[in-house]
Amino acid sequence: MGKIPVGILGATGMVGQQYIALLEGHPWFEVRYAAASPRSAGKKYAEAVAGRWHQVKTYSDAVGALIVEDANDLSRAVKAVKGGDCAFVFSALEMGKEEIRTLESAYAAAGIPVISNASAHRWTGDVPMLIAEINPHHTDLIPIQRTKRGWDRGFIVVKPNCSIQSYMIPLYALIKAGYAAGRLFVTTLQAVSGAGYPGVPSLDMIDNVVPYIGGEEEKSEQEPLKILGTLKDGGIKNAPAPRISAHCNRVPVSDGHTACVSLEFAGPKPSIDTVKEIWASFTALPQELDLPMAPKRPIILRDEADRPQPRKDRDADKAMAVTVGRIRPCNIFDLRFTCLSHNTVRGAAGGGILNAELLKTKGYLS
Amino acid sequence: MGKIPVGILGATGMVGQQYIALLEGHPWFEVRYAAASPRSAGKKYAEAVAGRWHQVKTYSDAVGALIVEDANDLSRAVKAVKGGDCAFVFSALEMGKEEIRTLESAYAAAGIPVISNASAHRWTGDVPMLIAEINPHHTDLIPIQRTKRGWDRGFIVVKPNCSIQSYMIPLYALIKAGYAAGRLFVTTLQAVSGAGYPGVPSLDMIDNVVPYIGGEEEKSEQEPLKILGTLKDGGIKNAPAPRISAHCNRVPVSDGHTACVSLEFAGPKPSIDTVKEIWASFTALPQELDLPMAPKRPIILRDEADRPQPRKDRDADKAMAVTVGRIRPCNIFDLRFTCLSHNTVRGAAGGGILNAELLKTKGYLS
Amino acid sequence: MGKIPVGILGATGMVGQQYIALLEGHPWFEVRYAAASPRSAGKKYAEAVAGRWHQVKTYSDAVGALIVEDANDLSRAVKAVKGGDCAFVFSALEMGKEEIRTLESAYAAAGIPVISNASAHRWTGDVPMLIAEINPHHTDLIPIQRTKRGWDRGFIVVKPNCSIQSYMIPLYALIKAGYAAGRLFVTTLQAVSGAGYPGVPSLDMIDNVVPYIGGEEEKSEQEPLKILGTLKDGGIKNAPAPRISAHCNRVPVSDGHTACVSLEFAGPKPSIDTVKEIWASFTALPQELDLPMAPKRPIILRDEADRPQPRKDRDADKAMAVTVGRIRPCNIFDLRFTCLSHNTVRGAAGGGILNAELLKTKGYLS
Amino acid sequence: MGKIPVGILGATGMVGQQYIALLEGHPWFEVRYAAASPRSAGKKYAEAVAGRWHQVKTYSDAVGALIVEDANDLSRAVKAVKGGDCAFVFSALEMGKEEIRTLESAYAAAGIPVISNASAHRWTGDVPMLIAEINPHHTDLIPIQRTKRGWDRGFIVVKPNCSIQSYMIPLYALIKAGYAAGRLFVTTLQAVSGAGYPGVPSLDMIDNVVPYIGGEEEKSEQEPLKILGTLKDGGIKNAPAPRISAHCNRVPVSDGHTACVSLEFAGPKPSIDTVKEIWASFTALPQELDLPMAPKRPIILRDEADRPQPRKDRDADKAMAVTVGRIRPCNIFDLRFTCLSHNTVRGAAGGGILNAELLKTKGYLS
Repeated sequence: MGKIPVGILGATGMVGQQYIALLEGHPWFEVRYAAASPRSAGKKYAEAVAGRWHQVKTYSDAVGALIVEDANDLSRAVKAVKGGDCAFVFSALEMGKEEIRTLESAYAAAGIPVISNASAHRWTGDVPMLIAEINPHHTDLIPIQRTKRGWDRGFIVVKPNCSIQSYMIPLYALIKAGYAAGRLFVTTLQAVSGAGYPGVPSLDMIDNVVPYIGGEEEKSEQEPLKILGTLKDGGIKNAPAPRISAHCNRVPVSDGHTACVSLEFAGPKPSIDTVKEIWASFTALPQELDLPMAPKRPIILRDEADRPQPRKDRDADKAMAVTVGRIRPCNIFDLRFTCLSHNTVRGAAGGGILNAELLKTKGYLS
Repeated sequence: MGKIPVGILGATGMVGQQYIALLEGHPWFEVRYAAASPRSAGKKYAEAVAGRWHQVKTYSDAVGALIVEDANDLSRAVKAVKGGDCAFVFSALEMGKEEIRTLESAYAAAGIPVISNASAHRWTGDVPMLIAEINPHHTDLIPIQRTKRGWDRGFIVVKPNCSIQSYMIPLYALIKAGYAAGRLFVTTLQAVSGAGYPGVPSLDMIDNVVPYIGGEEEKSEQEPLKILGTLKDGGIKNAPAPRISAHCNRVPVSDGHTACVSLEFAGPKPSIDTVKEIWASFTALPQELDLPMAPKRPIILRDEADRPQPRKDRDADKAMAVTVGRIRPCNIFDLRFTCLSHNTVRGAAGGGILNAELLKTKGYLS
Repeated sequence: MGKIPVGILGATGMVGQQYIALLEGHPWFEVRYAAASPRSAGKKYAEAVAGRWHQVKTYSDAVGALIVEDANDLSRAVKAVKGGDCAFVFSALEMGKEEIRTLESAYAAAGIPVISNASAHRWTGDVPMLIAEINPHHTDLIPIQRTKRGWDRGFIVVKPNCSIQSYMIPLYALIKAGYAAGRLFVTTLQAVSGAGYPGVPSLDMIDNVVPYIGGEEEKSEQEPLKILGTLKDGGIKNAPAPRISAHCNRVPVSDGHTACVSLEFAGPKPSIDTVKEIWASFTALPQELDLPMAPKRPIILRDEADRPQPRKDRDADKAMAVTVGRIRPCNIFDLRFTCLSHNTVRGAAGGGILNAELLKTKGYLS
Repeated sequence: MGKIPVGILGATGMVGQQYIALLEGHPWFEVRYAAASPRSAGKKYAEAVAGRWHQVKTYSDAVGALIVEDANDLSRAVKAVKGGDCAFVFSALEMGKEEIRTLESAYAAAGIPVISNASAHRWTGDVPMLIAEINPHHTDLIPIQRTKRGWDRGFIVVKPNCSIQSYMIPLYALIKAGYAAGRLFVTTLQAVSGAGYPGVPSLDMIDNVVPYIGGEEEKSEQEPLKILGTLKDGGIKNAPAPRISAHCNRVPVSDGHTACVSLEFAGPKPSIDTVKEIWASFTALPQELDLPMAPKRPIILRDEADRPQPRKDRDADKAMAVTVGRIRPCNIFDLRFTCLSHNTVRGAAGGGILNAELLKTKGYLS
């Protein structure tokens, strides 16, 4: 039986390249359609990325030979769908937020499911913002989305910002075990790959730290509430908690966002040992379904005093596991810990692929 | 009129070198005595530091020609005092805590004032832990210290850990203006020079962050309480607040500790504008006395969204000013900001020299 | 007597900012005219550089209050000259080479001396490419240039590329002492500030080296020949030697270009000791004239096995001295050494200012 | 059929850890014996490396449970041999050169083949210094070595220094194709992992380059001559060429040594295109034998102007391939290029394992 043909919107950009690198050899999906800006359209993919391929892994000859289409020209995608070359698209579009929102909607309206990495639709009411281990049931919005908008096969799902991946899964594991989160301080030390390419100038990252990333603190504070929200009235009612205060910093690290977290529980307070047990044993739907991109253990605990560290821990279990360490009581709240996830794999393309795998098992991609 | 002759204990180590570099050309003090480990004793200073001088600035020929004495051999120091070559010492000793405590006490008992950078005596009851802008009145402990211990001219004062310098002065400025601090979250991004030389291996600092510095969080949480404490019963009664929770990280920065702070006031809450006004206009005793090492403004405010940054702000005003930026409301507490100070100048040798200048104007060094 | 009023073309760019930072407090020159792209024109300088001032030093209030003019609008400059606000300009223009060539010529034609940092006129026959310690006599081309082109007061001089500054002065000192250079291998390890801002992306400079800088090897091989050339027929006849082969690399260093050099003499071969003596004692016209920007010693020798190093040596003597170390025989040629100069001071704005000082003493700026 | 049991001397050090990480899952070899300093002896391997395991990959439970033996106690190794737990050893000893030389000889004398990463025996006359693609025939010294020293089963082979791996294979490919090398300039930009752990202090590698690595230039100049030498009189007669001049630098890169090379041929000179063809098509004995650790292509050519780069190219083909780029004529010699190899894999443990695989197929390990 053949693989499901996949399209990438924004295929020549940084995240688009990551999708292509990560999908090489994927057991279910195969990249057969690549779309990008008009500047790249008409070129072979290999030509379009010549001199600006920034992944360590390279692309296959088959992908290199794909003719890049204009992402704005929906008719090309529709033709690819009819020709059996595109069952759904990963959106890694890099343009204005408003344009992305319109374009992604147009793809969905044309019958093409859109699994997006962009922030454009994160706050669209009936669009689920998925972390596969946390809120897979939010995919129940898809039929509602389709009905409401008159779409038949198409739909849109998004993933959240890369800055929150490292603490959302540990947080959720505690909530699921009965320990509701009340308030949370988080300071992030974020890698430069999160800013794309060329992204952060090296003059700002040699012997330096930049204590600001535009829009990142707001996303870090608000997106968790939608992810932890409940389905209601054909949309998502945000969770009332936790209340989050974020300080986001850019540090001279290539990949891997680190987060220092202090957490106050809203109700019962687990012991440090209980916290460790909950995290060490946590698994969720992607693990039960044994999805190809799912880590065996979503949370890896490290006992050493000085872990997690980006260079040593970011690649844990296909770079899809979150590593947690320095678990200790907080001097003000209840619990302190440091956590880390790979921002361009778990936090971007890898997370998108895991969402696609989940959607496939739920039958939304057929 | 001649300069006051100064000795350096631990003169060949990292902090000792900083004292020597910073004291070059000092209007009041002149290094005339250098002591270090037995390994260096008997060598000229220039020979003793050959191949391990890690400062950008170099030392004068006069200092290079000093014969290094054994710091353990108190008789040498006493002889230097008698010979008019040492009115007091800066202690930058690098040995076991217990040994330092004993040795510094011995110097003081021998009539030699000790202005120490070491942590050994920070929690000795009658030893003031000074930040010249905050608690200059704690020097009132010196006569008590002398009486209690039967010392005539000698005494010991210490300075606090380098990790807290960036937020203590802003915090104190608010307290002084009537806004008591209740609770404080701080995450530090600390420079490698804080660990001395060789210090942190480069393999741990290339494309990496280490989320742990031994003992640093405890110091960051406890030392502020002594500094803000009140004189009572011949000692210092710790301040009851603020309650502090610290996350300390090592980042690939040479000099300059950054701190991300969230602050809750205990009583009245100033507006953001009031906070800015208090900080921008703050001065204290070192400024009034126009001490040579004192920055014109202890606190420099930056309006840019992305400041302070270590490489751009650490050297502000002789590297003695604290730079504060990103002043904004906190989503949980009252106030959020990022601050930065030079850890080996303000946070080490520069802070020690400022303390000496203060002590001189108070008459303790004559 | 007042200072000479100076204009900066390209005043808001990286090199333009460096000129402004370095000219603060200059004893002879004062920035009174700032021109840049139309986008900045009409704004106060402080507004024009808000959020993109990349120097550690800041600009004066007087410079911040200057109204930025459109550099393409020559009439503004002419008006400034008439108004006594601009006796000559430093050109730090950032536009196409052809446009710069035309524009710089237009300024000169309008009677305004142009001391340029740009590469546009480096190979114009009657334009001297100056390193003040090496070829100050090439300024004799100025009267020829004026005559030939019918210019009265205006002229153009340029400075060479930043990659060659570290080895050209040591090389020249040897030539001057009678040891002609035959062939020279050089591998450079260049700082990112040489690429301007934003310049090199941080993703390319974290845990990485880029073994290529466009056009840099050609410049490194050819410019020395013009600098060492002789005046002939109203132009410069390139020196026939040394023959140079360059490998240029970008490394994760903010400022300071390092060069590893192997040199073969064409005639008599000095001993290593003779080389050291020549370099240690070398001075030239800028030192004799005691020009404000001139280093006391153009070449600083370091005996330590592991110097020069960018972070420790780049700032030597106002960042205008070249530091040389590792002087030893070569296994193939005659002499091996490593040298270093500050690329944005000696290699850019500082070198331009030194050239201006030289031109002033020669009477070309009055 | 079972795997060959392998011992590691110096198993807890940096290179020893690399052997253990790289041998995980090896199809032929299995680590069953671990020896280190007396300090580690008697502990489980997992305990012995607790807090100082510096590899990204971890070790297996089986290796973690091994009891570390004292490497100086030969009787333990002999016992392991008898017990079927050690057919040969990889030596990654970290002690004095003289001690290593004696100890490795003692292992060989006791019947245990020693495949060494240390430099101690590199210049022992009858000890081959192997790069498996270049001089596999030097293993013919093993029977001679055994006879001469009265050893039966034991022998010693070594691998060369990590700094030369990147250019030796390209150089040899040209020689093999009939283009003898005459003279060679090389400037290396070496990664910090080459200095072990803790190795280079981070204060020396943040915003800095160190233009010196003790002993490295001598090794880079001399070792190639032995590797390219011919067997004669029971030893190796060094090749007379190429004459090499090396400049070795330490740069802020974790793994991956870069080398900038200028090469002069001794006889016929190939065109640039011929050079590219020779390199692109080069294979040798390890490829013919399809050894598990052998890269498919020992040399990977990159056409991009700015490659090879450490972060992008070091891991090519199990980090065992050399990447070459910037192939162009030299302005003085004949050919210029930049090459890169992974210093701790190809240049250390990976190279040692490849040597062991070669020795196994030649029957020396049975």
